[in-house]
Amino acid sequence: MSNGVVNGTTNGHTNGTTNGTANGTAGPQYVQATNPHLKTQAEDFLYHFGISKTSGDIKSFKDIKIVCCGGSAGRFEMYAKQFGKDSGIPVSKNLSSSDRFVMYKTGPVLWVNHGMGVPSMSIMLNEVIKLLHYAEASDVSFIRIGTSGGVGVAPGTVVVSNGTLNGLFEEKHTQYIRRQVVKRDAVLDQSLAKELYDTGLRLGIPVENGMTLCADDFYEGQMRLDGAFCEYTAEDKFEFLKLLKEHGVRNIEMEATGFASFTKRANVKAGIICVALLNRLNGDQVTIPHDDYIKFEFRPFNIVCAFIQAKIASL
Amino acid sequence: MSNGVVNGTTNGHTNGTTNGTANGTAGPQYVQATNPHLKTQAEDFLYHFGISKTSGDIKSFKDIKIVCCGGSAGRFEMYAKQFGKDSGIPVSKNLSSSDRFVMYKTGPVLWVNHGMGVPSMSIMLNEVIKLLHYAEASDVSFIRIGTSGGVGVAPGTVVVSNGTLNGLFEEKHTQYIRRQVVKRDAVLDQSLAKELYDTGLRLGIPVENGMTLCADDFYEGQMRLDGAFCEYTAEDKFEFLKLLKEHGVRNIEMEATGFASFTKRANVKAGIICVALLNRLNGDQVTIPHDDYIKFEFRPFNIVCAFIQAKIASL
Repeated sequence: MSNGVVNGTTNGHTNGTTNGTANGTAGPQYVQATNPHLKTQAEDFLYHFGISKTSGDIKSFKDIKIVCCGGSAGRFEMYAKQFGKDSGIPVSKNLSSSDRFVMYKTGPVLWVNHGMGVPSMSIMLNEVIKLLHYAEASDVSFIRIGTSGGVGVAPGTVVVSNGTLNGLFEEKHTQYIRRQVVKRDAVLDQSLAKELYDTGLRLGIPVENGMTLCADDFYEGQMRLDGAFCEYTAEDKFEFLKLLKEHGVRNIEMEATGFASFTKRANVKAGIICVALLNRLNGDQVTIPHDDYIKFEFRPFNIVCAFIQAKIASL
Repeated sequence: MSNGVVNGTTNGHTNGTTNGTANGTAGPQYVQATNPHLKTQAEDFLYHFGISKTSGDIKSFKDIKIVCCGGSAGRFEMYAKQFGKDSGIPVSKNLSSSDRFVMYKTGPVLWVNHGMGVPSMSIMLNEVIKLLHYAEASDVSFIRIGTSGGVGVAPGTVVVSNGTLNGLFEEKHTQYIRRQVVKRDAVLDQSLAKELYDTGLRLGIPVENGMTLCADDFYEGQMRLDGAFCEYTAEDKFEFLKLLKEHGVRNIEMEATGFASFTKRANVKAGIICVALLNRLNGDQVTIPHDDYIKFEFRPFNIVCAFIQAKIASL
């Protein structure tokens, strides 16, 4: 073991459930938990949800087709209940028995929060991917519905990500495994991005396509001037935001590269749709009035709901 | 701007409140938010707590001497209320009006949760450091009370960290700022570690000193064999754990290097005290009975409470 950078395999299908059929036609695309050790484990306790693999309920997740996720627990409870009300589909109780995350099920849709930042989200993704793998769910899309800082877009604009960049402007997610740096591809499904974007246009919601910068913190990583610490100037900040624009970046959040990487490894489609709460070119503080905040945080949800209703109608 | 690694300054005191006195004797040590731009901002809205700098209440935090923090919101609500009950000091309502974090005040002690992972925690630290800076709090210690995976220690053992390592086994916290890698020192206060350790001994609680590995995820970064993905063998895992032991590591969690780095920059003492929920040499799953879990999660809390009571008595 020595320090160094290695390129991770992005999807090792050899150990997962076989997808497709022998004659080459496309069969169901199963959610892949490719870890070969899972096959030798009689039990698997999904610790951060308090759900056991051997509980009788695990197969009740087999019908899941869409996983909607985002940072805030309160918001995802609200989204799940609103979706249940609008669609007439019953909402489950909170299926997570840990206080780390919440999880609600409305028919084929799962609503889960993931906290803030890639490390927290990676725990949710690992455990939900295992859950859906054990349940033998297939043809699943994961959609991250979040808030973000806009880069040259007006507050309230919904940004549908067509790609992700890390803090070094690479389309990569970085992990530290076995004392080594492992970099994995962090790309998103373009067809899903187009569907979400087109749905936004159809609903008349202000929507843009763009790259998303994934920062590891809210302040220095996003070159805000209002954190506890700041060793750069206002000019440095604007130079950075200008460079982001030149790279096609339209918004900044804290999960995109990890989300793209983990979902690709799991053989699921992934989309990221975030509303911009501010235009970083005009400031760093989130100061929109509460009514606007509520209106804005429902915009990506409304797009995703319309997208889901169309999917459900076609099932 | 180009890619590269730069060494960050760990404590730029030039812009903060001056500590000490002109004749060299030690004065109050103020909490430092060294960002020079803060002085030019009439307002500062601590977004993830919903607290405004200009609200009348900000000075009510001036008396804070100890900030206790950890991942789970529910646990920190429970800790705050238990401390209030045991000490007879009234507990505030939840002072955070956002659902991202909770915050309770009991006299000179603040109880705040930080979610999982460094990015989430960094948001809490930035905003609580600014809060205490605006409040002109002084001589403050931050103590992280958490759960962890033990390395060669029995479940239930409390590990008081005497240092932190990142995934490359460096005593550094890595940030990505302005498209560059910035590495900062991530060291802890040895006197505080000793006080916490001695308090544990005095209470007859099983306690050890050791280094703490800070991983960026719960599964691959900690070389668990039970994540959704795993590209290493059981032998690789044990080789890694053995190497950790050789480096003096006694437990693994997901916040240590960031906690050490941000607190050092803020000119506050920092301690990390975590109970080990399992011995990773014996397995990866957290399967302790619920009663043991409750008993174990109170052990570091009980040590910190005894430590706080002694501090309060000396105020």
